[in-house]
Amino acid sequence: MPTPAIIPTAHAALSLALSQAIDNKTKPLGSLGRLEELARQIGLIQATTQPRLDAPAVLVFAGDHGVVAEGVSAYPQEVTWQMIENFLAGGAAINVFANQNGCTIQVVDAGVNHDFGARSNLVDRKVARGTRNFAIEAAMSQDQCRRAMEHGMALVRDLPGNVVGFGEMGIGNTTAAAALMHKLTDLPLAECVGAGTGLAPAAISRKEAVLTAAMRTHAGASAPLDVLATFGGFEIAMMTGAMLQAAALRKVLLIDGFIVTSALLVAAKLQPAILDYCVFAHCSSEQGHRRMLDHLGVRPLLQLDLRLGEGTGAALALPLLHAAVNFMTTMATFDSARVSTRAP
Amino acid sequence: MPTPAIIPTAHAALSLALSQAIDNKTKPLGSLGRLEELARQIGLIQATTQPRLDAPAVLVFAGDHGVVAEGVSAYPQEVTWQMIENFLAGGAAINVFANQNGCTIQVVDAGVNHDFGARSNLVDRKVARGTRNFAIEAAMSQDQCRRAMEHGMALVRDLPGNVVGFGEMGIGNTTAAAALMHKLTDLPLAECVGAGTGLAPAAISRKEAVLTAAMRTHAGASAPLDVLATFGGFEIAMMTGAMLQAAALRKVLLIDGFIVTSALLVAAKLQPAILDYCVFAHCSSEQGHRRMLDHLGVRPLLQLDLRLGEGTGAALALPLLHAAVNFMTTMATFDSARVSTRAP
Repeated sequence: MPTPAIIPTAHAALSLALSQAIDNKTKPLGSLGRLEELARQIGLIQATTQPRLDAPAVLVFAGDHGVVAEGVSAYPQEVTWQMIENFLAGGAAINVFANQNGCTIQVVDAGVNHDFGARSNLVDRKVARGTRNFAIEAAMSQDQCRRAMEHGMALVRDLPGNVVGFGEMGIGNTTAAAALMHKLTDLPLAECVGAGTGLAPAAISRKEAVLTAAMRTHAGASAPLDVLATFGGFEIAMMTGAMLQAAALRKVLLIDGFIVTSALLVAAKLQPAILDYCVFAHCSSEQGHRRMLDHLGVRPLLQLDLRLGEGTGAALALPLLHAAVNFMTTMATFDSARVSTRAP
Repeated sequence: MPTPAIIPTAHAALSLALSQAIDNKTKPLGSLGRLEELARQIGLIQATTQPRLDAPAVLVFAGDHGVVAEGVSAYPQEVTWQMIENFLAGGAAINVFANQNGCTIQVVDAGVNHDFGARSNLVDRKVARGTRNFAIEAAMSQDQCRRAMEHGMALVRDLPGNVVGFGEMGIGNTTAAAALMHKLTDLPLAECVGAGTGLAPAAISRKEAVLTAAMRTHAGASAPLDVLATFGGFEIAMMTGAMLQAAALRKVLLIDGFIVTSALLVAAKLQPAILDYCVFAHCSSEQGHRRMLDHLGVRPLLQLDLRLGEGTGAALALPLLHAAVNFMTTMATFDSARVSTRAP
């Protein structure tokens, strides 16, 4: 399927102008560390030395996974829809952190195995009531995968702001994400599989065995979109589409944890320039996430041993993006504040 | 001098109640990682399962250092008072981050070598116009050290809130902090000395040589308050006093970078229980800071390669403290949200 073109942000003259603007602020050279990198990145994304964050939103995509029939999760599938109800009622961690840090959330039913009825604050983009069990057959058809991605793209086109955080909910989706990671990075399955919501070691071994068997069943899948359709979830495919669209529109992408990054792996295979637009919010304690980030060659902002999903890491990192933009736009310069620069 | 008594926060029954409250929230067990530790710590400090943060403030203590005569800083001494003017005008990094994250700042002249005149938003607690050069003689008298600490204690007694961040400004103060660190941790000087505001390698060697000679000159100083008076700054001594008082009043102490932590090293020698009250905001890229934190056996929240001081790391970490408190007080429980718990 055609995906929107993403243009690398590299721009030598702007990059120099950004560095000069940063170095003129009243602080020792380089002393704001990662925030300086972040200011430079957001400046390049927005093509300005005066970056700003408008109407940040976290999109929380939810879907169910047929592979839970194999016993790969510590929680029953019904927790997916129950947590959606929790999001809609404002009681989940993502509600708390998004509310605290001034970002809106949009909860998207990408393919939950539950009938929610008409709900004013749930975005219904249900492709089907959960994927099929990839231990037996492909999780979704090519057509379902395409539709999920297109829904994601359309949702982002309708967003008013210039920062999009990504979050997800779906019992079983660390299993899907581990499969995507293995196929797209060539890392051994043992490095891709983790405890998810809290599996004991024996259950992690079972999860890995399920994945090992599934890799044999679907040995032919290798193109990124084939891999996505074979192992992915509707929430993952919808995120992949949304990410591609967001970068094409030069928005800042705020990447959360293991599952969100698995969706990005697909997007980055299709269009590597998408990485220019990504801010990596945190490193999850789901063990594969660190390896995913290393594979992409990127550094996360936060390391708080989170493994909750929902976009919580993205919402928690948002104040650091504000800090980067705010120091660029409101700090005094050595000249304006009449502060002596360093000795020559 | 007598310092206010600090009571360890350990409390078995409350600790259990906090863990139960955290585990009942709608999230996989332990999945909020460091935020769960933080919620538990703040709960123990405040002796409640419903912690709250009131009127957080960052105190920015400024002082000058006689040792700058030895050429230990990349910036001239006048930058100390010029930066105070910048703080008062709202143009520095700490202004930007404190303003963004909803905390007030109080700028305290602990001993700057400059006459500011009467200024409505500068707290004048000037002990003297800078310390003496500890390469030659003790930086301050015992009486000056005591007065600085008492000012710090009194300032904290007058604070309305229950969270105190610590920040500082003082050209030359990484040299003083390195001396304190060496004397109080027994780590080799080479591990305590760093680039400060940005010294080149040759200048770092010179800084280390100045410190090596000063250690011989003041070989007798070993009690914590002697070490503080001999090598410290007025801003550092005032912070030490303020920290002791804040912990005695069961406030949360938000510890910033290298210099702030050097003040804490003194306080912790006097009253080790103070560590129960400390949240370590970040790990500075000033090389000695990581070793200080390791020496104390603590983990910082942020690692952003900051090395700016002013309390910037403390202000940047504040949203994480809010997140910890907010999830404790506003997230739904499995019962209240009717979400299934994990399979038995």
